[in-house]
Amino acid sequence: MSLSILTGLSGVGKSTVLEEAVLLSDKEYKVINYGDKMFEISKERNLVDSRDEMKEIDTATYKEVQGEAAEQIFELSKDENVILDTHATIKTPHGYIPGLPKWSIEQLSPDKIIMLHASADEIFERTQGDDRNREHKSVEGIEQYLNVSREMAAADAVLTGAYFQIIENPDGGAEKAAEKLVKTLKA
Amino acid sequence: MSLSILTGLSGVGKSTVLEEAVLLSDKEYKVINYGDKMFEISKERNLVDSRDEMKEIDTATYKEVQGEAAEQIFELSKDENVILDTHATIKTPHGYIPGLPKWSIEQLSPDKIIMLHASADEIFERTQGDDRNREHKSVEGIEQYLNVSREMAAADAVLTGAYFQIIENPDGGAEKAAEKLVKTLKA
Amino acid sequence: MSLSILTGLSGVGKSTVLEEAVLLSDKEYKVINYGDKMFEISKERNLVDSRDEMKEIDTATYKEVQGEAAEQIFELSKDENVILDTHATIKTPHGYIPGLPKWSIEQLSPDKIIMLHASADEIFERTQGDDRNREHKSVEGIEQYLNVSREMAAADAVLTGAYFQIIENPDGGAEKAAEKLVKTLKA
Repeated sequence: MSLSILTGLSGVGKSTVLEEAVLLSDKEYKVINYGDKMFEISKERNLVDSRDEMKEIDTATYKEVQGEAAEQIFELSKDENVILDTHATIKTPHGYIPGLPKWSIEQLSPDKIIMLHASADEIFERTQGDDRNREHKSVEGIEQYLNVSREMAAADAVLTGAYFQIIENPDGGAEKAAEKLVKTLKA
Repeated sequence: MSLSILTGLSGVGKSTVLEEAVLLSDKEYKVINYGDKMFEISKERNLVDSRDEMKEIDTATYKEVQGEAAEQIFELSKDENVILDTHATIKTPHGYIPGLPKWSIEQLSPDKIIMLHASADEIFERTQGDDRNREHKSVEGIEQYLNVSREMAAADAVLTGAYFQIIENPDGGAEKAAEKLVKTLKA
Repeated sequence: MSLSILTGLSGVGKSTVLEEAVLLSDKEYKVINYGDKMFEISKERNLVDSRDEMKEIDTATYKEVQGEAAEQIFELSKDENVILDTHATIKTPHGYIPGLPKWSIEQLSPDKIIMLHASADEIFERTQGDDRNREHKSVEGIEQYLNVSREMAAADAVLTGAYFQIIENPDGGAEKAAEKLVKTLKA
């Protein structure tokens, strides 16, 4: 059994490619969203009622929940082939937050870290006029976001020894990207 | 109380923006220079008399002083809002030295790592004819220096989970940069 | 005594520059190839007969051999000046593998990490028509490979505090690169 982490900026087409890949593959994968798992744990602990309240959890508790989620996901990956859907970093007005800090990535100890990638130009085009992607204000900003994401994912690979795969998802290329994702997952 | 680390290449305008930010803010910040703190500790231990002698301390002792300084700064940050003025990396003729290696950054355990940034072209223009910035010999060299700085700061963020903020300080933009710095510090 | 790690993509001219540097230097260096050392250990443990079989070792055993090799090299570097010839990352169809993951680099605890560098254009030109370099399919691909290599080496420097030196090896520049390498090794 294996654990692969799929990362990618919003607007890169992660959901589409992931759905396609799960259909294409003859293997069974359990897709887990890291944020969902953390929310589930936080609700069980009565820390929050709604997803919006996740932001208000204090840092120490947040890290604890993040580590606990990583532990549960790692346990699951012993019995099933898991794809963990998350981000290497999340851009906020106050800076980039590492999505897979040391205590999380070392606990997960993934086989592969995969970054779905598109050019800054394409991500800009795809996300304009979409309210969910307000962090993408300029091509230059997306360029930096892509760099920081790749850098944090590379550091995660060094911490764990995981394969670090970058898969291109250009306009009109979702199917080819999904095929490459399947090949990488099965390798 | 909080600990924010402010990094940036020489020539990026760190001192100016930092002074301005401290004036602009209604909060109290204690600004500590990492190099000053290390010199202070080294003098107390009779390792050196002058700042110039810091280069001659052997590596093992240097690392110890670096860790001790980090510990003292972390302790201070429990009682005061601290801004730590330092570099993510320092360029020397023999290579880039990480300014915040693992044992230092994990001991500091900062809330935020902030990188003051300008384009390689602008840093080149600002530093020509200035003897203190002899490491900036070409635009290409500064480009690489900026990349390595961002990469080491990104690795530091992964090790600690700290926010990693990049603030632009283009020509004539010091006040706007200071405002953004204040917002980031207070967030 | 010291331990310096020399990294660089295939096609960057590492062997040539390294040979030249060893001749140029008045100091004695023991050059060790990390892959050779790992193969030696694997053979002693009866894990493999030939080098080709190294790929088939399971991940957990591979990591163990990697750590054991690092330990032996570190021990050697107490008595001799060692240059460790290896890669910061290796590109495979399934992703970039970190050549110096955490357990390896922390065990090695090198004084310097050196990256021999050339532009993506030059590496592309140098490796076309050469069967050993089938991983270099496009200039863009080499650009990304160079970025990931630099990023993983930067993370390694943060983990250990080692100097991170980047030495240019442009066409016709092997001798100058060798001289710079010697200066860096002796610093």
